[in-house]
Amino acid sequence: MEKKIQVGVIGAGRIGKIHANNIVKSFPNVEVKAVADIYADQIKDWAASLNIQHVYSDYKKIINDKEIDVVIICSSTDTHSRITIEAAQAGKHIFCEKPIDFDIDRIHEALDAVKKAGVKFQVGFNRRFDHNFKKVRDLIQSGAIGNLQIVKVISRDPAPPSAEYIKVSGGMFLDMTIHDFDMVRYLTGSEVTEVYANAAVLVDKAIGEAGDVDTALISLKFKNGAIGMIDNCRQAVYGYDQRIEILGTQGGLSVANDTPTTVVLSTESAVTQDKPKYFFLERYLESYEAEMQEFFNSIINNTDTVVSGIDGLKPVLIGLAANRSYQEGRPVKLAE
Amino acid sequence: MEKKIQVGVIGAGRIGKIHANNIVKSFPNVEVKAVADIYADQIKDWAASLNIQHVYSDYKKIINDKEIDVVIICSSTDTHSRITIEAAQAGKHIFCEKPIDFDIDRIHEALDAVKKAGVKFQVGFNRRFDHNFKKVRDLIQSGAIGNLQIVKVISRDPAPPSAEYIKVSGGMFLDMTIHDFDMVRYLTGSEVTEVYANAAVLVDKAIGEAGDVDTALISLKFKNGAIGMIDNCRQAVYGYDQRIEILGTQGGLSVANDTPTTVVLSTESAVTQDKPKYFFLERYLESYEAEMQEFFNSIINNTDTVVSGIDGLKPVLIGLAANRSYQEGRPVKLAE
Amino acid sequence: MEKKIQVGVIGAGRIGKIHANNIVKSFPNVEVKAVADIYADQIKDWAASLNIQHVYSDYKKIINDKEIDVVIICSSTDTHSRITIEAAQAGKHIFCEKPIDFDIDRIHEALDAVKKAGVKFQVGFNRRFDHNFKKVRDLIQSGAIGNLQIVKVISRDPAPPSAEYIKVSGGMFLDMTIHDFDMVRYLTGSEVTEVYANAAVLVDKAIGEAGDVDTALISLKFKNGAIGMIDNCRQAVYGYDQRIEILGTQGGLSVANDTPTTVVLSTESAVTQDKPKYFFLERYLESYEAEMQEFFNSIINNTDTVVSGIDGLKPVLIGLAANRSYQEGRPVKLAE
Amino acid sequence: MEKKIQVGVIGAGRIGKIHANNIVKSFPNVEVKAVADIYADQIKDWAASLNIQHVYSDYKKIINDKEIDVVIICSSTDTHSRITIEAAQAGKHIFCEKPIDFDIDRIHEALDAVKKAGVKFQVGFNRRFDHNFKKVRDLIQSGAIGNLQIVKVISRDPAPPSAEYIKVSGGMFLDMTIHDFDMVRYLTGSEVTEVYANAAVLVDKAIGEAGDVDTALISLKFKNGAIGMIDNCRQAVYGYDQRIEILGTQGGLSVANDTPTTVVLSTESAVTQDKPKYFFLERYLESYEAEMQEFFNSIINNTDTVVSGIDGLKPVLIGLAANRSYQEGRPVKLAE
Repeated sequence: MEKKIQVGVIGAGRIGKIHANNIVKSFPNVEVKAVADIYADQIKDWAASLNIQHVYSDYKKIINDKEIDVVIICSSTDTHSRITIEAAQAGKHIFCEKPIDFDIDRIHEALDAVKKAGVKFQVGFNRRFDHNFKKVRDLIQSGAIGNLQIVKVISRDPAPPSAEYIKVSGGMFLDMTIHDFDMVRYLTGSEVTEVYANAAVLVDKAIGEAGDVDTALISLKFKNGAIGMIDNCRQAVYGYDQRIEILGTQGGLSVANDTPTTVVLSTESAVTQDKPKYFFLERYLESYEAEMQEFFNSIINNTDTVVSGIDGLKPVLIGLAANRSYQEGRPVKLAE
Repeated sequence: MEKKIQVGVIGAGRIGKIHANNIVKSFPNVEVKAVADIYADQIKDWAASLNIQHVYSDYKKIINDKEIDVVIICSSTDTHSRITIEAAQAGKHIFCEKPIDFDIDRIHEALDAVKKAGVKFQVGFNRRFDHNFKKVRDLIQSGAIGNLQIVKVISRDPAPPSAEYIKVSGGMFLDMTIHDFDMVRYLTGSEVTEVYANAAVLVDKAIGEAGDVDTALISLKFKNGAIGMIDNCRQAVYGYDQRIEILGTQGGLSVANDTPTTVVLSTESAVTQDKPKYFFLERYLESYEAEMQEFFNSIINNTDTVVSGIDGLKPVLIGLAANRSYQEGRPVKLAE
Repeated sequence: MEKKIQVGVIGAGRIGKIHANNIVKSFPNVEVKAVADIYADQIKDWAASLNIQHVYSDYKKIINDKEIDVVIICSSTDTHSRITIEAAQAGKHIFCEKPIDFDIDRIHEALDAVKKAGVKFQVGFNRRFDHNFKKVRDLIQSGAIGNLQIVKVISRDPAPPSAEYIKVSGGMFLDMTIHDFDMVRYLTGSEVTEVYANAAVLVDKAIGEAGDVDTALISLKFKNGAIGMIDNCRQAVYGYDQRIEILGTQGGLSVANDTPTTVVLSTESAVTQDKPKYFFLERYLESYEAEMQEFFNSIINNTDTVVSGIDGLKPVLIGLAANRSYQEGRPVKLAE
Repeated sequence: MEKKIQVGVIGAGRIGKIHANNIVKSFPNVEVKAVADIYADQIKDWAASLNIQHVYSDYKKIINDKEIDVVIICSSTDTHSRITIEAAQAGKHIFCEKPIDFDIDRIHEALDAVKKAGVKFQVGFNRRFDHNFKKVRDLIQSGAIGNLQIVKVISRDPAPPSAEYIKVSGGMFLDMTIHDFDMVRYLTGSEVTEVYANAAVLVDKAIGEAGDVDTALISLKFKNGAIGMIDNCRQAVYGYDQRIEILGTQGGLSVANDTPTTVVLSTESAVTQDKPKYFFLERYLESYEAEMQEFFNSIINNTDTVVSGIDGLKPVLIGLAANRSYQEGRPVKLAE
């Protein structure tokens, strides 16, 4: 039997556990050798249930383990760029959760280190691997709707995070919209050239007091001439609202929400159907496994990763422009 | 039997004929006594089939006919304000197709004349009477979705008009979006305070050469704090796309397109359903009759009309702000 | 101007009024000259509002009026065949509400009289003219789904009639299912050869005590080899449920219910949409006008009517077989 | 660490592999120790990839292995009852694919052996664990639609099996409809008392020549008074059609097909959406894991299995009655 690819997972919060679980269950040729988390004690049972041999509190033990080929970076955002640099310098392939950093210079440093080391690097924009969105992208690329005119992403969370979270989140545009900035790049195959953020605090005053917004319509211009709009809200009481709508010269595309079942109940008072799947892990379940599949494929086959370092950089640039647009009340060009 | 209300219809193009037909068929207590059109010869047979007694080429014969109680103004836009003033001065109730005028001063003159004469005045924003949109408004007003956060109107024509039409249309924002500006006021019960028009020429270069745009995403701020977006295109190849989507603190509302049938055909190659109703007269058929019903009710019962002079003025103001926003590439405040 | 076709309406209950209204509003070349109803006093105001000149309590005055070209028979079912015979003998074209009679011999007598007189005769199976069902038929005939295999009609009333009505109704299969027996003939273009009625009293005991059933699944065999099923219930609390589903060798067809609006309301507790249109006059509104259009077309153009005497006879034969099947607990061949 | 439950899988065809995969991936406390298949050579690589220690060609090695606690019987139908008896006598818990047997006496023998041995026994009616159908059952049990009136199951395969398969299949009613007979029992919580099979050969003459049918509408009566209908076809060219529709005195329930995505493509020629999931393993993916979960739960917690021996017997009895109904052209009582 071939030697298995050895993996170290850094950061075993919600998303780190997802990735570790998926690797253990779905990739027989990959082994999670170690996991590092600052709360190492709290994850020991979980790690044991997956037969993960080592649980560290210091992620450097993973960086320094020469048997480990790959690191999965799921620690807090402020550590992503630093660990990326260290892992690259240690010659390890890297899967890094989004965003790489909030600071453009540090992103460039990290990407430079990756480039120099010649290791694989993939950013965790999992929604690209979603069954619905992937089909939209495939249909666009096949020419099914002609040239793009209007690109709309609806992306609303079921419930707002705490004001504490908001304070360290980087703000809605960099924390939440960043996925949608990636999505419009992925769908259009074009770059955003200008952004105008129409935003407000309509869900929770505490979010406003923390200096952030909770509701936004973000108007976009693309290099290919198309225009677009991202519709964000920190709260949609009916569930996690994740849709897309595209108009092209030859047709339109739309994506409805996934629901737990297709059951419709009709009574004297109403005709009711399921609400959208509520939780992002449930909604995007398969996409997390699919992105990992593609990542390991790129390692095994020595091909480019499907979500590159540039794909990690660009949404941050758009997010920073959206911040500026909102603060200055005007459209902001990415080239400014 | 009571004396019937006597009506004169000015302008017997497509929309004038619709109104005359509806009145003749559906209002037994109302009589269309006369119709005026600059091409009087071409409408004689049609008028005869409706038992309309008089066909004039000069609309002043209607203004001067003391037996006529009501005029329906369906002539070209540049004549609306003038005829409104003359009809008001002659003491006639007025139903005026949108827009009243492209010139704010002339709108004010017309509304002043109406006010002075004390006659009823209703503007032809028929979509307020649409079964779908009316239900959305009713649900919003009932509090079903709490406070409004995001208001979105999708309004796309099936095919673009000729470049000749474009040149005299007043531009997309005043010709097409004006309905949507009215719709957002109707739905929210609030006023637009700021507008940003992200627009492009993506359908037909000739439209651009005529100085207009054909595709737009218009970002809005409302006095009540909500934000909004109007999505317009002069061409949606799959049909007339007329939808609405609202997010509130307690829920969301959406309207799908009406279709000719509910038939679904499933074959080895595809599952297909009807395209949206294609033609605006088919799509809004019932709304034209309903707006006329409300107009005559307000005359008979001496109540306020449901679409007032102010309702005619405001969308033009928003449209002019949208024009300026597009030309200057910045958000424009209505109060500027 | 050409002489208008002169019409007499016999029976001005709900359906008689519908037909008279439609003729007056939609057919400028047709005039309703007279209406007869045993409760003539109660319909005078209504008749006046439509400018109908004569209101009789005795329908024979219509039969004997030589100026009248057409009679519309909307009186009680037990009078249909007799009036048909009298009207045919008087040389009048006939539109007769369904069913012609519950007695096969009397149907034959009526159809013979029609044939002898050479007048047009159309039976009131309005659902053939419904937008949804007509499209299904057209697609089947175009070969869109290949050869038919399974034909299913769902036809449920929103609320059961009174036990008094049940007693004179002829029973569910002849009163309600008769429309569906017509529909399967219309859709398949084939004849029913065998019927098995699986039925029960599950809505209202009083219906059972009146000797009838209120819930049924009626299994059918067709001459062309297809099999079918009609699903009937006297009560669907969520509204008037009128659907169709067809399987063929090359595909499937289905029809969903029409709804008043397309609005969807999503809240924390549920995602709700409109119930089906509740009332049969609302649901089948356009079909009543369309069947009348076709009827007058066949008179004006001297063509065959689209729902013939045989089309009136066959569903009664199937209904009687269904009765026998239910009583004897076995499949019954139409040829028995 | 607790000792793991040791499992032997007998028969490693398509469904045997599914179960083994699910157990290995999803049940950390269960170990697949051995697999037996008459084509043992062909499954060695697959077994190795799952770390299954033993691959036998003779299933008796599993029966005789005292360390094995549980057998999963996925061999050909004619071996189910015999292996069940042997496994029960060896004291092993049993999960047996449907049907237990086509012979009622042999089913009784098998169930007697199970009873005598006191082991757990679950039949592989996986559709009970489907997300859609389970919700329908839960809503019925909650009283959401009142008393049941009409129960309809649509169950159509995407493509017919070969005539060779047909010959050993037991016939459509015992091979395919058996799942639906189980489903109506599961949904209603009531027993079928009478069955009438209206069936035909409309897909493939070879199926008729093999003595079977390929298209059927099976009419049912239930002990609780409800009536029902199963709609089967060996071919639905648009995909695997798996739906349910229920009418009760307080409302209706319906289930639409699952689709791969929710994408809708609207072009000038059509509005198209996804076809149903095509393959039964894809459609019922989760249900196979869920039924195994429940089975092991019943072993671990020493509770009754959720699909009992009686649940295995009854659908075969209904299937045999359906066969007789079709052959004799009459409704057949289960009590005959």
